Amino acid sequence: MSDYVLRPADHARYDRAKFAKMNLVAGHRLGLGLNCFEPGQLQSTHTHADADKFYLILSGKARMRVGEEIVHAEAGDLIWAPAGEPHGVEAALERTVMLVGIAPPPGR
Amino acid sequence: MSDYVLRPADHARYDRAKFAKMNLVAGHRLGLGLNCFEPGQLQSTHTHADADKFYLILSGKARMRVGEEIVHAEAGDLIWAPAGEPHGVEAALERTVMLVGIAPPPGR
Repeated sequence: MSDYVLRPADHARYDRAKFAKMNLVAGHRLGLGLNCFEPGQLQSTHTHADADKFYLILSGKARMRVGEEIVHAEAGDLIWAPAGEPHGVEAALERTVMLVGIAPPPGR
Repeated sequence: MSDYVLRPADHARYDRAKFAKMNLVAGHRLGLGLNCFEPGQLQSTHTHADADKFYLILSGKARMRVGEEIVHAEAGDLIWAPAGEPHGVEAALERTVMLVGIAPPPGR
């Protein structure tokens, strides 16, 4: 088992109660994880005052918000939420898996 | 044109002289870009003493190095190179596009 290579899509799992989050790698300066949504699940709009964040849609489709923009995102799209910009997922339109990166990670 | 959403794969371009690098987004804490390789092109092994880095293979295949490990990476694989760990691309085995993230970005 390598410490350095993994397939994010293989780590996806779902929770019927709310969208599922899992960590993939935890550096001091960067953390990477997955956010996995069942259709209709959401992530409330929130802001990281001091962290830059991205979502890369690995599969599925979702209606997302960044700042004042509503974004219709699908597999292959990169969503960028720089520090201070409110962002969230208004609704997954199908089962959706997002690679998420945040720098610095929470707690650092 | 949104400031917050883009399709990384649409930004790929190639250089016959050496692998091509392009920036996608530039935050204060996180930078994202593409590394695009023609078959056989390489990125020399190098180390970022104070930055965490990842590669996500968007398309293609490459033989990569992290630390003492040789990794055969293909589309969907995430390669993690935490600060201080030597890493590079020994050879792209076909045309290969990698999303690359580094925190903090060079010069920050």
